Amino acid sequence: MLKELLSQMTLKEKVGQLNQRLYGWQAYEKTAEGMILTDYFKDEVKRWDSLGVIYGLFRSDPWSQKNLETGLSKEEAKIVSQMIQDYVKEHTRLKIPVLLTEECPHGHQGLDSLTTPTNYSVGASWNPNLYQVAQAIVAEELREKGAHVGLISTLDLCRDPRWGRTEECFSEDPHLAGAFTTAAVQGLQGERSERVLASNKVLATLKHFAAQGSIMGGHNAAPVEIGERELKEIHLPMVQAGIDAGALLCMAAYNDIDGVPCHINERLLTTILREEMGFEGAVMSDGCALDGVARVLGGPQTAALALKSGLDISLWDNVYPYLEEAVLEGLLDETLLDQAVYRVLRLKEKLGLFAQEVDNDPIIATTEEEKIAINTKLAEEAAVLLKNEGILPLTANTISKVALIGPHIHNVYHQLGDYTPYKNLTTCITIAQGLKNVAMSQQVALTDTQGSLISSPIPGAIEEACELAKQSDVVVLTLGGSSARDFSTEFDANGAALSGSNEMTSGENIDLADLAIPTPQMDLLKALHAVGKPIVAVVVAGRPHLLKDCLPYVDALLVAGYPGQHGGQAIANLLFGLSNPSGKLAISIPDENGQLPVYYNYRDTPFKQDYLDISGRPTFTFGEGLSYTNFDIHETKVKQTSEGFVVTGKLTNTGEYAGAQVIQVYAKKYSNDVLPRVKKLCGFTKVFVEKGQTHPFTIQIAAKELSDFDLELKPRHFKDFQLQVETTNYSEIFSCSQ
Amino acid sequence: MLKELLSQMTLKEKVGQLNQRLYGWQAYEKTAEGMILTDYFKDEVKRWDSLGVIYGLFRSDPWSQKNLETGLSKEEAKIVSQMIQDYVKEHTRLKIPVLLTEECPHGHQGLDSLTTPTNYSVGASWNPNLYQVAQAIVAEELREKGAHVGLISTLDLCRDPRWGRTEECFSEDPHLAGAFTTAAVQGLQGERSERVLASNKVLATLKHFAAQGSIMGGHNAAPVEIGERELKEIHLPMVQAGIDAGALLCMAAYNDIDGVPCHINERLLTTILREEMGFEGAVMSDGCALDGVARVLGGPQTAALALKSGLDISLWDNVYPYLEEAVLEGLLDETLLDQAVYRVLRLKEKLGLFAQEVDNDPIIATTEEEKIAINTKLAEEAAVLLKNEGILPLTANTISKVALIGPHIHNVYHQLGDYTPYKNLTTCITIAQGLKNVAMSQQVALTDTQGSLISSPIPGAIEEACELAKQSDVVVLTLGGSSARDFSTEFDANGAALSGSNEMTSGENIDLADLAIPTPQMDLLKALHAVGKPIVAVVVAGRPHLLKDCLPYVDALLVAGYPGQHGGQAIANLLFGLSNPSGKLAISIPDENGQLPVYYNYRDTPFKQDYLDISGRPTFTFGEGLSYTNFDIHETKVKQTSEGFVVTGKLTNTGEYAGAQVIQVYAKKYSNDVLPRVKKLCGFTKVFVEKGQTHPFTIQIAAKELSDFDLELKPRHFKDFQLQVETTNYSEIFSCSQ
Repeated sequence: MLKELLSQMTLKEKVGQLNQRLYGWQAYEKTAEGMILTDYFKDEVKRWDSLGVIYGLFRSDPWSQKNLETGLSKEEAKIVSQMIQDYVKEHTRLKIPVLLTEECPHGHQGLDSLTTPTNYSVGASWNPNLYQVAQAIVAEELREKGAHVGLISTLDLCRDPRWGRTEECFSEDPHLAGAFTTAAVQGLQGERSERVLASNKVLATLKHFAAQGSIMGGHNAAPVEIGERELKEIHLPMVQAGIDAGALLCMAAYNDIDGVPCHINERLLTTILREEMGFEGAVMSDGCALDGVARVLGGPQTAALALKSGLDISLWDNVYPYLEEAVLEGLLDETLLDQAVYRVLRLKEKLGLFAQEVDNDPIIATTEEEKIAINTKLAEEAAVLLKNEGILPLTANTISKVALIGPHIHNVYHQLGDYTPYKNLTTCITIAQGLKNVAMSQQVALTDTQGSLISSPIPGAIEEACELAKQSDVVVLTLGGSSARDFSTEFDANGAALSGSNEMTSGENIDLADLAIPTPQMDLLKALHAVGKPIVAVVVAGRPHLLKDCLPYVDALLVAGYPGQHGGQAIANLLFGLSNPSGKLAISIPDENGQLPVYYNYRDTPFKQDYLDISGRPTFTFGEGLSYTNFDIHETKVKQTSEGFVVTGKLTNTGEYAGAQVIQVYAKKYSNDVLPRVKKLCGFTKVFVEKGQTHPFTIQIAAKELSDFDLELKPRHFKDFQLQVETTNYSEIFSCSQ
Repeated sequence: MLKELLSQMTLKEKVGQLNQRLYGWQAYEKTAEGMILTDYFKDEVKRWDSLGVIYGLFRSDPWSQKNLETGLSKEEAKIVSQMIQDYVKEHTRLKIPVLLTEECPHGHQGLDSLTTPTNYSVGASWNPNLYQVAQAIVAEELREKGAHVGLISTLDLCRDPRWGRTEECFSEDPHLAGAFTTAAVQGLQGERSERVLASNKVLATLKHFAAQGSIMGGHNAAPVEIGERELKEIHLPMVQAGIDAGALLCMAAYNDIDGVPCHINERLLTTILREEMGFEGAVMSDGCALDGVARVLGGPQTAALALKSGLDISLWDNVYPYLEEAVLEGLLDETLLDQAVYRVLRLKEKLGLFAQEVDNDPIIATTEEEKIAINTKLAEEAAVLLKNEGILPLTANTISKVALIGPHIHNVYHQLGDYTPYKNLTTCITIAQGLKNVAMSQQVALTDTQGSLISSPIPGAIEEACELAKQSDVVVLTLGGSSARDFSTEFDANGAALSGSNEMTSGENIDLADLAIPTPQMDLLKALHAVGKPIVAVVVAGRPHLLKDCLPYVDALLVAGYPGQHGGQAIANLLFGLSNPSGKLAISIPDENGQLPVYYNYRDTPFKQDYLDISGRPTFTFGEGLSYTNFDIHETKVKQTSEGFVVTGKLTNTGEYAGAQVIQVYAKKYSNDVLPRVKKLCGFTKVFVEKGQTHPFTIQIAAKELSDFDLELKPRHFKDFQLQVETTNYSEIFSCSQ
C-alpha cells in the first residue's frame, strides 16, 4: 500500500515528506476568536502540496515565547493537532497525514505535562523499570495531545562533565545508559512486536547519533576525535539497545567523529547504523545542522550528500528543500529519495495514521495521583547519598526545628533542567513546599531563606541565613546549579542559549570550565558551618560539581540532580526517612577541574593515574552511594547458561530501615590483543529488601554483553574473562570462560 | 653479503641480534686497575653467541648511578666501546659488531657532551636549520665515543601540557614538529643519499611511534582514544618527515591507539608505517613495554605477536628471548624473524660496521667555542618574549643595578630538563653566571638571591629578596618548573620517575593537573611587585604554565623553556639586548586548567569556544612572540609552481634593533566532506633583518603539505583552499586552487 502511494507521488510531494522546516509553535496563534492556523503553516503545505513532519507544535519555553497564556493547554493541543491534520487532508492532493514530533527529554516540553527528573538524575536510580513506567506516562500525554513522536536524549554518554548537556546523559557507562534507552523506547513505544503502536504510545526519536559526549573540552558541538573502536564500545551500545527495543527514529548529532560530520557520514548513518546494527527506521537532522554544511558546499550538493549518507528528515534547515533541485540536476538518484520517503511513510503506518480507525481507541489515562506517585518515586530512587555522619534521616525524636536554606528552594525551575516548558506552579512541589509538607506531618518546625542566588550573593542574606541556623537544630542547605532559562536569555537559531542568565549554569551550550560549587554558595556554606549546627547539603544540579571542598563543612550530602516537578517532595521524603536513598552515581564526581577525564571505564593499561600534584581519581566514583540501612550479600554464584551467564545470590537487610541495594556485575581482563577496560559494567539489579529480611537476586548477563570488537572491529565474544560482583562494601571475582 | 651472513646464522644467533636487554651502563665497571667488562655483559654475549644491540652504555644520571666519577668520560667511553666490540669479535662465532644506542633527546645523556635546549624550547625557535647544526654536534660527540645510534624524541606532539613529557615535544603543530624532525635526522645522519653514514654521523631512533601526545588526561602512557584520521593528520606528519629524511629506526610508544597497544599493532607498525609511509628501517620497543603485554599473553605468544606486528628490536624486556621458543613451537614463521634480523644487519651495514676501514676516517671535531656559540644561539632564538612594557632590553643608560632572583638561578640542572647526564659544572653557565658575565661587561651591578625553591618556600627568603629589590633599579625574576632529578628520586624499571623530588615538576611520569606557577613562586612575585620596582620575569620550565595570573605583576615576560647548558648566557644576552628575542610559541599557553585542550589547530566547526564562566582560548596562542624591533611585511605574493606553491614578499625592519621575524603560512577551508582544521601550518620562514634594512623572503610550500585524507583515509591534495600569510600584526588571505 505504501509502495503504491509512493508511486503516485510527485517529486515535490516526496520532498515535502522529508522537510521538517517549521518552528511548529508558529503554526498556530491563539486569538480572541480561538485558535487559528497561521499563513506560515499554510504556505508550507502549499509549497509541497503535502507536509511530512512538524516539530514542536506544542513546544513551550522562553525561546518559543509560548507560555501559560500563549501556549496550548492539553485540551487546546488536541484541537490544534486535529486542525493541522484536517487542513492537510483538505488542502493536499494525496491527503497524507502529518507526523507531529515533540521534545520530551524529561517529559513533554509542552504545557500540562509531567516533568520528570532529567537523565542525569534518572541514571543514578539504576531502575530502568521505574523509568519505563514514567516514559509510558509521557507517551500517553503526548498522544492525548495528538503528537506522534517524542524526541528524547538517550544516546549521549557523559565523558566530560564540563559539557552543559551532561544533564541529558544517563551515565558515563554504556551498559547502564543502554538499559535506560531500552526503557525509554519500551515506555514510549510499547512492545516491539506490535504492528501498529497502541493508541497511547508514540515513536521515540533517540538523540543524538553519535558520540556527542566525547566532544573536545566539553564544548557543545565541538569536534570529536575518537576512533571507531571507542565509538563502538562507548557510544553505540545505547544505539543498539534502542534498535533492539524497536526504535525507528534517531537524530544525527551536531559533531563530527574523527573529522567527518555525522550529518554527512555515510559510514556512520548507513554502514554502521543500518548494515551493521540493523536499524530499519529514519534518521532526522538536528536543528539547522545542515545549514552549517551548506555554507561551504551549497544547498543542492549538501542535500544530495546528506541524503545519500543516510539522513532522511530535516529540521528547520533550508537545505532539504534543495532535494528537488538535487534530483533534477542529477546530483541525487530519485530511488534514494524514494527510500527516505518510504521510511517516513512507514513511520506513519506504524502509528496507524493511514488507518480509518485511528485515535478511536479510548486511552485509559493514568490518574494524576498515579503520576505524582511515580514521578516522586523516580526522584527518590535517583538521589545519591554520599555522606552521612548519622544526622540523616531527620526525625522528630532528635530534631525539633529545621532551617531550610539555599538558592533552589523556592524556584521550581531550578529543579527541572533545560528543555522545560512553562509550568503551572500549583502542580509542582518546590523543595521548600516539600519540606514544609513533611515537616508538618512529622511535627517538626521549618523556617527557610534563600541565603544566596545560584551564582551571585544576595546582600544581607548570609547573615539572615546564619540567624535562622542559630535558631534551629539542623540546617538543610541546597547547593549546585540551575538550567532555568528566563527572558534575559538570548537564543541561537536552534534554540540553544547564547548566553546564560545570572542564574543559569547548565543546559545546552552552557559549558563550564570550573565545576566548583559557585563561590557565593560556598561562602554561604562556610558561614553556616561556622554557626556550628549540623548541615545536610542537598546538591541540585545538572552535572557533577566538585564536592571535595564541601565535604569538610557538611554532615550529610545528598545528590539529587534535577529531580523533576515533584522533586521537592522526594527530597523531603528522603531527608525525613519516609524513603531511603538507593541511588548510585552513574557519573563519577571529579576531584579537580584539572584532572578530567575521570570516568571509571578507561582502558586497562599500567599508567600512573595520579598526577604529581593531585589525585587522578574522582572524589566519588561511578556506582557509589549510601543507604540508611546496611546490606549483607551472600551465597553469590555465577553460572553459564545457554544465553550467557547468570549471577545469583542473596541480599539481607541487616539495618534499621527498609531499603534497596544495587548489585553491579563488571567484566574484566577479557582481551589480549585489544586493551580491555579496567572494568566494564555488564549487568546489575536493584533489590528492595524490608528491614531484617533476605531477598534472593538474579542478574542475567546476555552473551552479547560479554563481547568486544576484534582487530577488524567486528564483534566477538569474550573467551576468558573475570566477572566482578560488586556492591557497597562487597566485591568478589569469578573467573569465567565461554 | 648480509643475506649470506643471515643464512649462516643459527636461530639463537638471530634472536641475539634482536635482543637489547642490557642496561648498558652495567656492562662495565671502573676499577682501580681501569675499566673492565662485567659478567652481566659477558653472560649476555655467551647466551646468544652474539650480541645485537646495547642501549645506554654511556648513560649517566641518578637512575644509572653513573656520575662524574663512576661514569665514562669521552676518552673512557671511546675505550670501553672498543672493548665491547673487541670482546664480541673474540667471543662469538660470526663476529658481528654490536650496535650501540644512546639517549640524546637534547644532547647525549652521557658525560662530556653538549646539553642543548630541550625540544619544547627548540620548537619555539622556528629555526630547524640551526637545530640541525646542533644535532650534527650531538652526532659527532656520540660517534667519537663509539656509539652508533641516537635516540631522540621528535614524534611526540603536545596536545595536553599536563603531560610531563611536554618538554620533549617540539610543538602542538605537526608541520613545525616535522620540520624539526627533518633537521634532527639530517643533523644526526647527514644526507639520505649516502650509502654508508659519514664517520661523524649516527643513526637516529625517532621516539615515539605513535600518538603519545594524545594520552588521556595528560597521564603518561595512558590510553589514547583518537581515530585514524586524527592520527594521520596530527601525529604522523613528523614520522613521514623523518622517513623522507632517511630515518631507519623508530621506537614504539607505550600507549595504545584506540585500544590496540602500539607494540603489537600490525596496522600501525606494518600497514601504515611500512606499506603506506615507506619506512624501510627497524622498530625498537620502548623500555620493558613488552613485559606489560606478556603479563596477560605470556612470553612466547607476546614475542610472536609483537614480531609479526612489525616490532624488530626489544628494550630491557624479558619477552624477546622467547622468540627462539616462539619459532620452535611454530608460533612464529622463521622468515619473519629473518626479516627483522636483516633489518638490524642493514643498520650495521649502513653504519659501515662490517667494513674493515671502520672508524679510520678522522673526525674533524667541532671546537668548544663553536659548540658554545651554536648552543647559545639556539637558546637565544628559542626564547619567546610575550610582554614588554618598554623595560627590555636592559641598558646601562637606564639601569645601574639589577636584582636577580628566582629558584633557578644557581642550579644548572633546573635549566636542562629530564634525560640529562651529570654535568661538569665548569662547562655550564647558570642564569646567575650568565647575567653576571653580561652585567659586568655592561658595567651594571648585579646582586642575586634565590627567594624560593621551585615548589616550596625558603624561610626568610622573600624578605631578603625584597630587600635586594629595594636596592635595585629592576628585578629579574625566574619563574617556572624543573625536571632536575636527584638522589631522592625513586625510579621505575624503565627509568621513569616514580615520585618527584620537592624540586621536580616536569619530566617522564611527572604529570601535573595544575599548570599554575607554584604558589611559593607566586608569593615571591607578589611580594616583589609590592616593592614597586619593574619586574622582568623569565619563565624556565618544560611545559606551558598558566601565565595569566603573573601578567599583572610583571613589566616584561620572557619564556625560555629549558635553554640548555649555556642557557644562562643566552638569557643574559637577550635581557641586555645583545641579542633580540625571535622565538614564537610552538605550544599555546592555556588560560586555566579547566579549559584544556587549547591547541590552535582544532577542526573548523561552529561551536561556542568560550565556556560560560571563562574563556576557552589560550592566554597566548601558537605562533605569538614579540621582538625589540618592529617589522613591516609588504609585497606578499602567492604563486603556484610545479612543486606546489611559493609565497614571496619583503620584510622591513622599521625599529631600532636588528632582529629576526617568523613568517607563517596557514592553509584554511580546504575540505568539504571532512572538517578542515581552523588553520593548518603549511610553511614558514625565519628572516633576519638588520635595523632599517629590507630583506626578501621566500616560503616554498610543497604540494604534499597541501593535502589531507579522503573518506577512505587515503591522502589527497586540496582542490580549493585559502593560504593565510601571518606574522605579528599582519595577516593576509589568498584564495588558491590546484
